[in-house]
Amino acid sequence: MTTIDLNSDIGESFGRWELGDDEAMLDLVTSANIACGFHAGDPSTIARTARWSVQRDVRIGAQVAYRDLAGFGRRFVDASRTELTDDVVYQIGGLQALAAAAGGTVTYVKPHGALYNTAVHHEEHASAVVDAVAAVDPGLAILGLPGSRLLELAEQRGLRVVREAFADRGYTPSATLVSRREPGAVLHDPGAVAERVLRMVSDGVVEAVDGSSVKIDVDSVCVHGDSPAAVEMARAVRDILAANGVEVKPFS
Amino acid sequence: MTTIDLNSDIGESFGRWELGDDEAMLDLVTSANIACGFHAGDPSTIARTARWSVQRDVRIGAQVAYRDLAGFGRRFVDASRTELTDDVVYQIGGLQALAAAAGGTVTYVKPHGALYNTAVHHEEHASAVVDAVAAVDPGLAILGLPGSRLLELAEQRGLRVVREAFADRGYTPSATLVSRREPGAVLHDPGAVAERVLRMVSDGVVEAVDGSSVKIDVDSVCVHGDSPAAVEMARAVRDILAANGVEVKPFS
Amino acid sequence: MTTIDLNSDIGESFGRWELGDDEAMLDLVTSANIACGFHAGDPSTIARTARWSVQRDVRIGAQVAYRDLAGFGRRFVDASRTELTDDVVYQIGGLQALAAAAGGTVTYVKPHGALYNTAVHHEEHASAVVDAVAAVDPGLAILGLPGSRLLELAEQRGLRVVREAFADRGYTPSATLVSRREPGAVLHDPGAVAERVLRMVSDGVVEAVDGSSVKIDVDSVCVHGDSPAAVEMARAVRDILAANGVEVKPFS
Amino acid sequence: MTTIDLNSDIGESFGRWELGDDEAMLDLVTSANIACGFHAGDPSTIARTARWSVQRDVRIGAQVAYRDLAGFGRRFVDASRTELTDDVVYQIGGLQALAAAAGGTVTYVKPHGALYNTAVHHEEHASAVVDAVAAVDPGLAILGLPGSRLLELAEQRGLRVVREAFADRGYTPSATLVSRREPGAVLHDPGAVAERVLRMVSDGVVEAVDGSSVKIDVDSVCVHGDSPAAVEMARAVRDILAANGVEVKPFS
Repeated sequence: MTTIDLNSDIGESFGRWELGDDEAMLDLVTSANIACGFHAGDPSTIARTARWSVQRDVRIGAQVAYRDLAGFGRRFVDASRTELTDDVVYQIGGLQALAAAAGGTVTYVKPHGALYNTAVHHEEHASAVVDAVAAVDPGLAILGLPGSRLLELAEQRGLRVVREAFADRGYTPSATLVSRREPGAVLHDPGAVAERVLRMVSDGVVEAVDGSSVKIDVDSVCVHGDSPAAVEMARAVRDILAANGVEVKPFS
Repeated sequence: MTTIDLNSDIGESFGRWELGDDEAMLDLVTSANIACGFHAGDPSTIARTARWSVQRDVRIGAQVAYRDLAGFGRRFVDASRTELTDDVVYQIGGLQALAAAAGGTVTYVKPHGALYNTAVHHEEHASAVVDAVAAVDPGLAILGLPGSRLLELAEQRGLRVVREAFADRGYTPSATLVSRREPGAVLHDPGAVAERVLRMVSDGVVEAVDGSSVKIDVDSVCVHGDSPAAVEMARAVRDILAANGVEVKPFS
Repeated sequence: MTTIDLNSDIGESFGRWELGDDEAMLDLVTSANIACGFHAGDPSTIARTARWSVQRDVRIGAQVAYRDLAGFGRRFVDASRTELTDDVVYQIGGLQALAAAAGGTVTYVKPHGALYNTAVHHEEHASAVVDAVAAVDPGLAILGLPGSRLLELAEQRGLRVVREAFADRGYTPSATLVSRREPGAVLHDPGAVAERVLRMVSDGVVEAVDGSSVKIDVDSVCVHGDSPAAVEMARAVRDILAANGVEVKPFS
Repeated sequence: MTTIDLNSDIGESFGRWELGDDEAMLDLVTSANIACGFHAGDPSTIARTARWSVQRDVRIGAQVAYRDLAGFGRRFVDASRTELTDDVVYQIGGLQALAAAAGGTVTYVKPHGALYNTAVHHEEHASAVVDAVAAVDPGLAILGLPGSRLLELAEQRGLRVVREAFADRGYTPSATLVSRREPGAVLHDPGAVAERVLRMVSDGVVEAVDGSSVKIDVDSVCVHGDSPAAVEMARAVRDILAANGVEVKPFS
């Protein structure tokens, strides 16, 4: 039987400001990328989200980011490799302690926003994330884009890698993501997105913006959590997978 | 043979701003209260300080604080009990991960500045610190003022408490600290401070501001680390203890 | 003809996080208390909100706060008088420049959250706000609670004061606000709130929680902006005032 | 008679952390680039520095930066043009209000650190600084590197530009600064630096790292303020200028 992991960004509120419907999303996904305080996620938000994840037996990951609350971690910050390594270690640790207090455990790390995109190609920043994970706990998996420098370096270091695909993002013919500044970057129709995910999971193929079929390796599918339609889209994905005999469960 | 632990605040730099001579102090003390990022201590400062502590076999403690970089954690912040608990857990976790990356372990928690003073009498904030420690790791000791609400609650919860005295602070006849707004709050002469510490450790007695002798229980003596004369004073304390056969070693 | 000013907290988003429907509220109020960056309001949010205010000829005020993004300025911070004065001057200045860039002018100052409540009785913090306003521009009005230490000190200093009432808050028989920890602190029914505002404005009277009638002086009525029902409530207030011949216009 | 302006970075402390000897430097320079809170400079530090500048009749400039306390504004942050414009306006405004409270006025703007370096070539970020200055007060001068995109755009917009040279930085044969990662980037000998400044000011020439003589236009010379030897170096510069009949006074 085919199985797939669904991951989503969770815990991206900050103090008074709420973002996304975390409880609803946690009912639908199997892996929660919990914000760790540098782009979002004050400690009480993290604590609450970790408890909700434990209650639902959802896997907890550290969604690490540049130190940039005002920019929500979406802006590249030219940190040195050492600074970034230490920042990532600190974020993982903050989440580990709050997860432990909730009876849970952090099992993977996923970079957020600009750090995610940068680690696809930036040797120093990709290395910093790998260094941080290796230093804190080499048992942690790293979730990232197939073919990214991040996953290459993680594999070289002997770390577990989890290759992810994006449910609602456009792909180029070479299996990279269409830039958000170009047409076709984001898909909005839940039904179309659900069909797309089914094909990714069943056949390892996604239709690129030029209409061609592109092969992709995928261990986990990312469904976004911060848009109003996020819950509906995630539900559509789960439904179509269930209807086609694909089991949604955490990556092994 | 009499033994005593010496602790000091360490790692209170932040980014470009340096404070104190951490390496010199780490050569003199046996327990390092490392700042955890909320009042001071960016992750790279923490990482460096943790490595220096491990190299010297100095015990690592989490110096937790209110979220107040601009005020250096010296201002009371009226956080809710839950917020404060989560903030303290997060800070401990951040340090734990960086300490682990340095090959070390966090073994105790000491509140900093306004949180230290508040936890002497404030039921909710003292409870928050105890809740946090119990949630992260009940094996962590709590370092605080003898007679404080913090240590009372910690003992009730079955946590290990370490009672500390201050080398260079004035005491009232009832064994509390003289307020920094009053005369006699801080002693500056290294020789006098050293003599004072010897008497605390050997006889369990300190001379109060009114000249009376006050009994105090002490497992650890705090020597300050952020003043220019700090290193000289710590050295004078070590010297007098050595000359009088008191062994300086971590609290058991 | 009776006239009244309606004020509301505006611009309390921060980066990615949105709060309230600022444009809708700005269509209904005559004075905008714009957050200045210390509890909410990144510069781009401020800039946008200032432009919207200028477009609608809404008066711009500086909603100044403790430095506390994580607590949304709702937590007392024990700053020194000097620190707080300087923090308030800086916030006013930041808003002044962004308002000027939008073609507008800051004409008053209103403390936010914990600073608002503290300045009712806390001599040092009330003085700090008055010092700041006097230092930046003695032509700025201060908006606050009638009978508060803040307004007393402002009047003594010769500053213009604007006395405000709260549309949806419960009052005690002595004309202070019912604590949010007690029943009757907040009213939720738009119709009842609208009736209440009409009586405040027309008769200078509000019904207290014990059913007694209390006299209050009011130059401006605060309608909240951050709840889902805020816009509906503000509209109900405007409608009843219009139906009863009360003109809504900025305080003179 | 030849005249020259000397500028220095001032007010780069933050809360508990002190950096540089601001009062000593303010006795030696004629223009103070005061940090505005985003890379350094809490409001009380700004207020104090502004008072010291007014007392000495030193010109006040806004040293604006990326929002990056942890990195001291030395790290490029990929902000959008609009975000950066608004951030710069806010910083200028915060300083303007504190300068006004001190009886002074902001007369120019100088980008700090990574923003300074980025604005040499980065169209969007250079434009953002120019937009901000034009929006706040087109009477403000912009201080920057001759030949930089920043000064080109400022001139096109009709803003006043002040071209600066660096007392202690190495120059390439094409009149740009030697990168800090290369040898010869920074000069340390006060006597040699003083001679160099004299030649810059008297002859409009600086010796490049390859020994060639390079022509430079200079309205102001930057002397660094944050190193231990900074005061000594600035004094040597003043002395040699005085001995050679060059008057040190603010740019006109």
